[in-house]
Amino acid sequence: MTNALYPRMAVIGCGLIGSSIIHAARGAGLVNEVWVADADDRTRARIAELGLADAIFAHAADAVVDADLVVLATPPLSLADAAKAAARGLKPGATLTDVGSVKGGVGAALSAAAPDCHVIPGHPIAGTERSGPDAGFASLFENRWVILCPLERPDPAYASAIQRLSQFWAGLGAKVELMDDKHHDLVLAVTSHLPHLIAYNIVGTAADLEQVTQGEVIKFSASGFRDFTRIAASDPTMWRDVFLMNKDAVLEILGRFTEDLQALSRAIRWGEGDRLYELFARTREIRRSVIAAGQETPEPNFGRDRKG
Amino acid sequence: MTNALYPRMAVIGCGLIGSSIIHAARGAGLVNEVWVADADDRTRARIAELGLADAIFAHAADAVVDADLVVLATPPLSLADAAKAAARGLKPGATLTDVGSVKGGVGAALSAAAPDCHVIPGHPIAGTERSGPDAGFASLFENRWVILCPLERPDPAYASAIQRLSQFWAGLGAKVELMDDKHHDLVLAVTSHLPHLIAYNIVGTAADLEQVTQGEVIKFSASGFRDFTRIAASDPTMWRDVFLMNKDAVLEILGRFTEDLQALSRAIRWGEGDRLYELFARTREIRRSVIAAGQETPEPNFGRDRKG
Repeated sequence: MTNALYPRMAVIGCGLIGSSIIHAARGAGLVNEVWVADADDRTRARIAELGLADAIFAHAADAVVDADLVVLATPPLSLADAAKAAARGLKPGATLTDVGSVKGGVGAALSAAAPDCHVIPGHPIAGTERSGPDAGFASLFENRWVILCPLERPDPAYASAIQRLSQFWAGLGAKVELMDDKHHDLVLAVTSHLPHLIAYNIVGTAADLEQVTQGEVIKFSASGFRDFTRIAASDPTMWRDVFLMNKDAVLEILGRFTEDLQALSRAIRWGEGDRLYELFARTREIRRSVIAAGQETPEPNFGRDRKG
Repeated sequence: MTNALYPRMAVIGCGLIGSSIIHAARGAGLVNEVWVADADDRTRARIAELGLADAIFAHAADAVVDADLVVLATPPLSLADAAKAAARGLKPGATLTDVGSVKGGVGAALSAAAPDCHVIPGHPIAGTERSGPDAGFASLFENRWVILCPLERPDPAYASAIQRLSQFWAGLGAKVELMDDKHHDLVLAVTSHLPHLIAYNIVGTAADLEQVTQGEVIKFSASGFRDFTRIAASDPTMWRDVFLMNKDAVLEILGRFTEDLQALSRAIRWGEGDRLYELFARTREIRRSVIAAGQETPEPNFGRDRKG
């Protein structure tokens, strides 16, 4: 018990990511005690049934008392309020981090609420389309990246807090990368926010057509469409927040996507087969690289056809 | 052996779909003998190594001799030529079908080449991102739909040929739906062609950015992007053909998609959170329906995180 990296961890907001962190941190012996706060009555009841926490509270300030690590795992737009709500309970010198998908502004908001804590905004690049405390599992972060966006605060105590948090994530199986928050938001706009926007949009478009019924779309979805429905089943509150918070980067990347799509549309209209072939052959390589980087299963159809 | 639905089957073009049909039809005892033609030397050598065929030919006309069922499984734009090439070997009264993703014009082209055959254009709604004779497997069509687009030819012999081909597909584990070819092309533009176009496009856009490196895109792809790379790894020749052949329906559906995307873009720019939430909550239901229809695994992340 004495070797725990953070003797007491507080998790504020216990959905997919919060509950996965608890499972993984307990499994790896990185914490001794876990206190949890969640504003939702049913979620708290479920946390109790699942035995996720040593103590459960409705208010963040109660859950963070004496915590060495505080993880804010609420939807992105609620982070600032969650930090403010936790503030009066926080132990000076505790590490305060978050797991939100947008990082711009988060460091400033958390620092304003908790000036005596080591504020280290973070973002694990992992997840599923599920949400809520039942969705979490210990291996979610294995071989995935976690991006930390530390403040410009070059004091040694802060540097050692960053090192400890990096060790914590490594203990959960993740690989850690440090990044400037502005660059994080641009990278994620490409790898995550635009893909979600496109998936939500195509599923919406397909649902609204008059000439093709929803029943037909569902029946014949194995020809491509179903892949998009996974992402488009992600938590609506979280994703609303992401697009509102990362507006500029998303609109910039979306502009590039739309421009490319118009060129592709034109190539189809004018029957430019070579141009289509060139793009379609090139994109194949990228999947090979994603698989080679250990970020994807090499099995066809994601292995979803596997028997048993 | 005497109960085979089609004593001899000829498969012209032996990639993912052709080889899967062979595996499945042999496994189910629906055919006694399989003759194969493929124009590619290396593919023929591989077909021999895999033991897929009882006889292998370079020319379609040689492979179709005495065949009761001829399956054209070449890329869509090569279908008409494949039918012409097979024509002089075809047995009158044989059933001639195909598996192409676009159906407009196929019935007319095959009928012109083979006026004495029962021409029944078809399309199995199944596949993976792999291609070539090694990619096939017997269970590919299990619980998937096959769309047949019969000609307007109300003679009883033709009706019975349709029934037999339907039985054949049912024997491979598939469910059969009859459909008008024009409607097929519109439905597939939504469920398959647009999703592929979007996936190819987003992977291309991400690869071409200056501010975000390809290494970053690959590293952080588990946040959404990687899902798109699967579809964007599909066979480039086949997909070039699909977009050239189904131009009108694809451009129509793409127009709707773009319109919706512009509305979504505007909602982000103006911070219309309720509008975003409404769409994101609605699309969740569609995934539930796809899973309920047995067209998708219910496991999170397509089950790709499953251990072992």
